[in-house]
Amino acid sequence: MLPGPEHTLPAAVDSETRVTAADHMALRLWLRLLACTNLVEAPLRTRLREQFSSSLPRFDLMAQLDRHPQGLKMRDLSRRLMVSGGNITGLTDRLVAEGLVARSDDPNDRRAYTVKLTALGQQHFSAMAQDHEAWIAGLFGGLDGSQQAQLFELLGELKASLPERD
Amino acid sequence: MLPGPEHTLPAAVDSETRVTAADHMALRLWLRLLACTNLVEAPLRTRLREQFSSSLPRFDLMAQLDRHPQGLKMRDLSRRLMVSGGNITGLTDRLVAEGLVARSDDPNDRRAYTVKLTALGQQHFSAMAQDHEAWIAGLFGGLDGSQQAQLFELLGELKASLPERD
Repeated sequence: MLPGPEHTLPAAVDSETRVTAADHMALRLWLRLLACTNLVEAPLRTRLREQFSSSLPRFDLMAQLDRHPQGLKMRDLSRRLMVSGGNITGLTDRLVAEGLVARSDDPNDRRAYTVKLTALGQQHFSAMAQDHEAWIAGLFGGLDGSQQAQLFELLGELKASLPERD
Repeated sequence: MLPGPEHTLPAAVDSETRVTAADHMALRLWLRLLACTNLVEAPLRTRLREQFSSSLPRFDLMAQLDRHPQGLKMRDLSRRLMVSGGNITGLTDRLVAEGLVARSDDPNDRRAYTVKLTALGQQHFSAMAQDHEAWIAGLFGGLDGSQQAQLFELLGELKASLPERD
């Protein structure tokens, strides 16, 4: 078998390198979208770990609670999370133990307790979120404002056309 | 505190719903990118499970081996995977047990064994890949060819500007 195109690519290796010219545009587009997501997530994970001893699922969870100061039921929290791989119950237990999250029972439904950030949790999240936003601005800084706006629009079209999550 | 904008949004809830108008473009762009990735991944996971009793990490692993018929060392395989959350050693063990993947030792480095698809594994992957590509074409079908090409270009710019993965 003749060497495929992957043998002449530069050293960087990612999900896109599995595509051959024969693959269709939608598949190439999907693999590039996934590669970009991974390439942004990787430094975020590293920085959250190194600078805040935190993780992306933990940051994500606190971000959702920060947006809902009245608190969220566990099932609503779970629907809103965007980073997979975190054990929500385990993460929440740890945040409660650290005093960053408070849990209150719903007297009408004992399984449907509500969680919210404590004042300490708000402070802690706020510091992380400020740095997180600066990291994101830096990671997307290779695109100018007009390219970012164009990309935002196109992804908006795509998103509107995709089936909604359960 | 006054209700935030999230209270007037339609029922669909995803990672983007945590953004307020005050957030910056790069952050909004990132959350939309992540939301799109999640919205594509979710039906892929469901269909791979329901129609092939498979998973996205397992499909990803076989896709990389399919692209490298000469086989891959475990560490190269690991670098090429694009879906996180799979236990690569465990996945490989299972694929070997099912006769879909073969493992061969490197006599020079016993830790650096090579894995490749068996003939059965190639057949199995090929059937999945055909359906997978049709699913992707369907999921991205809300964008016409010109929009797909534009999105592909913009993501290419973004990707080229992002730090490479280790």
